[in-house]
This record gives sequence, structure tokens and C-alpha cells, in this order.
Amino acid sequence: MMNHTISRRAASKATLLAGISAATTAQLSQAAPKLKKNATILFQGDSITDAGRDRKRQTANDARSLGRGYPAHIAGDLLAESPKLDLRIHNRGISGNKVPDLDKRWQVDCIDIKPDILSILIGVNDIWHKLNGRYDGTPEVYRDGFDALLERTKKSLPDVTIAICEPFVLRCGAVNDSWFPEFETRRAFAEEVAKKHNAIWVPFQAKFDEAVSSGTAPEYWAADGVHPSHAGHSLMAKVWRESVGI
Amino acid sequence: MMNHTISRRAASKATLLAGISAATTAQLSQAAPKLKKNATILFQGDSITDAGRDRKRQTANDARSLGRGYPAHIAGDLLAESPKLDLRIHNRGISGNKVPDLDKRWQVDCIDIKPDILSILIGVNDIWHKLNGRYDGTPEVYRDGFDALLERTKKSLPDVTIAICEPFVLRCGAVNDSWFPEFETRRAFAEEVAKKHNAIWVPFQAKFDEAVSSGTAPEYWAADGVHPSHAGHSLMAKVWRESVGI
Repeated sequence: MMNHTISRRAASKATLLAGISAATTAQLSQAAPKLKKNATILFQGDSITDAGRDRKRQTANDARSLGRGYPAHIAGDLLAESPKLDLRIHNRGISGNKVPDLDKRWQVDCIDIKPDILSILIGVNDIWHKLNGRYDGTPEVYRDGFDALLERTKKSLPDVTIAICEPFVLRCGAVNDSWFPEFETRRAFAEEVAKKHNAIWVPFQAKFDEAVSSGTAPEYWAADGVHPSHAGHSLMAKVWRESVGI
Repeated sequence: MMNHTISRRAASKATLLAGISAATTAQLSQAAPKLKKNATILFQGDSITDAGRDRKRQTANDARSLGRGYPAHIAGDLLAESPKLDLRIHNRGISGNKVPDLDKRWQVDCIDIKPDILSILIGVNDIWHKLNGRYDGTPEVYRDGFDALLERTKKSLPDVTIAICEPFVLRCGAVNDSWFPEFETRRAFAEEVAKKHNAIWVPFQAKFDEAVSSGTAPEYWAADGVHPSHAGHSLMAKVWRESVGI
């Protein structure tokens, strides 16, 4: 398993390097966006992104509108560090969402907001609700729906920088053996979609795995295995900023 | 005014240096606490500290218990950076509080929690409620009440590290000329109390003044002049960590 992981990583690094050497300037700027004045940053996803935000408020840069999760952590830091950029940071994550739910509200909750940087974390409900018998989408349905959503996004917003966040779980709480190996397949599909669309990849699962390997209980990062603790959200914010490069 | 400020700063720096050269080892460790395993950190204050926390929850390290303000920003970072320390971070700020309100609930909301590091931000309501005609405590009442509170704290918790946060306002919103010079007197009294008790000083007013001098509108940091924006809380978190040294 470990060897397989390493060789897969080595392979994808090789692919990435080849990609970079052949990249156009546009592709390179996609990989490392610069924060421009008045840039709009949008966080999209499910309950992990939603994180208790007040959905009746949709005010940029506002604590209650941003929720209590990684988008709020990232927004606070960016807004405090770069006050002169007049950034506009939004959260539109909605608890329980799967790819088809994003698709239904994408015009209003993404395209119309015209983000310069769009961050998407979606996938855990696509499997969880299937395991619960409330949904029947296969991993391929997830992949193809996600792919179509990005296709649509780039058609409407050709200059947007997209960050795809790796769906993740911790091995505790609600997360038992029934999640595997299907969850791994879905993670791999998210990464495949990210690569296809030249999106930034934010390796949440890899970083949570590292944190647990270093000797912290998985519950420290997410008691139910799915919803991060305050510490977990803060770790995600750190990983997101390192990956997105802002 | 500027010359006066500079000479006062220079004078207090001289006092501080004299204090340090004469300091005992215990005093030096007070000035730069080390985060020990299982350390308890407590944030106390008014609405700025409260920041929308769920007061029915009093769970350490919990996003809803910590609120949306600087205590949550600080806690998230510390918990993510030092997972092996098993820190316990609490917020017990209550909106509207003045020094006498802290005094009334101090046994339950501070002493009984046995903090290793205690952070206090109090003072803006002590003047604001007076300007509104809802309270009649003078600056001297503020100083003496604050002094007595710290005296009591150190008697019950002789090893606690105390951080006194500088009360601050931004010159906008509800903050008009009627606040001055009394607000400056109260800030100076808070600093005097901090020095008397060898507490760490967290210079929020100084740092907000710097941010505004650098060309950001005061409203960016606190629309009503008193309650920080999300950006303002994040700046406070940064200043707090730099000052406390953890």
C-alpha cells in the first residue's frame, strides 16, 4: 500500500513537471495566482465549507457570513495581511451538498459572483449519502458531474483560477471500513478532474494523514471523521494557503 | 501631541529596561511563557472577546464555544501547530462587561478554570456606558478595580501568566471627540496596572494606529469604531501572539 502510494506520487510528480515544462504562461499563472486589487475569492462546498455560516447574510469579508471553518481562517489572515487589496471573500458552502446540488445553484452561487479565485471542496456527501441509502451516484457519476461543473465554470469564467480541494476523511467516528476502497476511488477521481482542468490541487487528505502519522489521534482533527475540529479547520487553512500560494 | 507621545514612550521604555535588568528569573519567565503540555489558556473580556460565542457551550477548543473573534483565531493556530500539547483553550468574554462585571463572575469564570495563561481585554464599556449615562465609574475607578482584580487573581493563581490587552478604539462609527482625552487616560491606566503586576502588555491600540497610518480606513478594522471586523480580529490575533510570545 505504502509502495503503491509512493510510486503513484512519484508518477504524478513526473507528470506535473512535464506539464510545467510544456506549460503556457497562462497555465503557469493558473498554478500560482497573484492576489490582485479587488480580487474576489469564493469558497464552495458542503458542510465542511459552510461551517455554521449565517446563510441569510452574504456580505463579503464578514465573520458571520464566512462561518467558523477554513474559509474564515483563510479570509481573516488574507484581509489582515493585505488591507490595501480590498479583497472580497465569500463563502457559499451548503451543508449536505453533493456535486449535483452545486450544479443546481451554480449560476447564482458561483458564476454570478465572478470569482477570480474559486475553491471547491465536494465529495464526502456523494459517498456518505450513498452508504446511507439516500443517494445512488457512483464514483463515475461524481467524476463526470464534477468534470462538467468545471467545464461550465471555465466557459463562463475563462480567467478564473480554480483550486480543487481533496475530499478527505479521518478514520474515526462515522467513518468505518464500508467507506473503502470506494472513497479512495473518489479521491483519485477528484485529482484526475483537477489535473484535466489544470486546477490547483489542495491535498487535505495527504496532510491529515501526515498529522495522524505524527502521532495525533484522528479525533483531534475531526471527531466524527468528516467534520473538522477547530484545529482541523486551522490546519486546512494552512494547507490551502501553501497549495494556492497566496 | 506627537512629541508628547514619543517622550512618554521613551520614558516607559527606559522604565521597562530598568525593570528587566533588575528582574528575577520568575519575572522573566512571566514575560515569555512557554506553552507546557496540558496548558490552559483563558480569554476574558467584553463583547470584543465574546465575539458571538455560544455561551451555553463551554467546551475547550470548540469553535462555537470560542466565538468568531481573536480568541478563535489564536486558538485555531495554536491547536493546529501544537497538537501534541493537548492545550485547553477557553473563551469567557461577555458582551457589555466592565471591570465590576468581571469581578462579580471572577471565581467561576476565571479562578475555577485555573488558567496557566490568562488574557484580559476590558475597558471600552467602562467609558462607553459612562458616555451613554448608564454608568458612572471614573477612570480611577477603572484603574483601581482592574488593579484589585489582578491582585485577587495572583493570590488565587500565583503561577498564572497574565496578558493585559490594551483597550482600543478606531476613530469612526460610534467613537467621536467626546471619548477623548478620557479614553487615553484609561488606556494609560491599563498599562500602569499591567506594569504594576508584571503582566505582558498587548498593544492593540498602537497596532491599529499603525495600520490606519499605513493608509487603511479605520472602518476596515472596526466599522463602529469598537467592534473589530473579521480583518481586525485577525490582526489582533497576530499582535497577541507576537506580544505573548507563543
